[in-house]
Amino acid sequence: MQNKIFELNPRLENDSLLIKKLTLCELRLMKDGELDWFLLVPRREGAQEITDLSEDEAALLWSEIKKVSNTLKAYGKVDKINIGMIGNIVTQLHVHIIGRLKTDRAWPHTIWGSKAECDFNQERLLFWKDHFKA
Amino acid sequence: MQNKIFELNPRLENDSLLIKKLTLCELRLMKDGELDWFLLVPRREGAQEITDLSEDEAALLWSEIKKVSNTLKAYGKVDKINIGMIGNIVTQLHVHIIGRLKTDRAWPHTIWGSKAECDFNQERLLFWKDHFKA
Repeated sequence: MQNKIFELNPRLENDSLLIKKLTLCELRLMKDGELDWFLLVPRREGAQEITDLSEDEAALLWSEIKKVSNTLKAYGKVDKINIGMIGNIVTQLHVHIIGRLKTDRAWPHTIWGSKAECDFNQERLLFWKDHFKA
Repeated sequence: MQNKIFELNPRLENDSLLIKKLTLCELRLMKDGELDWFLLVPRREGAQEITDLSEDEAALLWSEIKKVSNTLKAYGKVDKINIGMIGNIVTQLHVHIIGRLKTDRAWPHTIWGSKAECDFNQERLLFWKDHFKA
């Protein structure tokens, strides 16, 4: 790989907003008006699968997935956490961590491919920026 | 929790076949005629989210997810690995690790909720039992 400088995929950048840079990942919030939907994007140029990460990077990713899940559970309104590493369309490695509700638009099916009816509200970003400060 | 003895959820049991018992999880193969679709089910009664696992159990789960992903990549035919912890319908904690193909029935969308047109062939189970022997 010639260019090792991490660049966030333009689609991920367009669909989400930065909450915080963690040790390995950018923690981002999807612009979803209805759900708390986080993205973790490891800042490792070229990584597409977890098998592309080193042992240390994989351990960090897991610890960041657990951190986000714990914070979501502690402060969010959530009936079930859905975690997914898909990447069929956007190949840059990224993890979805989504707080699902039994009343949400796609329940009990997966949320990918469905669209929120409500607009994203900036307050959701501020709320999570505040709760991920520590 | 009164009953701590692990019992596999009947739907997971019906939809998949045992490949091998790993340290934490049952490694199972979904009866899918088209794709290599694995399940990891931690043998921890009552666990629904990764946040329900102890630190040690969570570390084991991650190492088993990586092991399955590496083996799938090494020996399977796969364009993209999809990993998911959903559990909206079957609440018993389980991880999907799926070898997706650009020609498969749902590509590029997620595979959950779609059905294979081909019947499951026992040879797929024997193949993976053989490759997870070590």
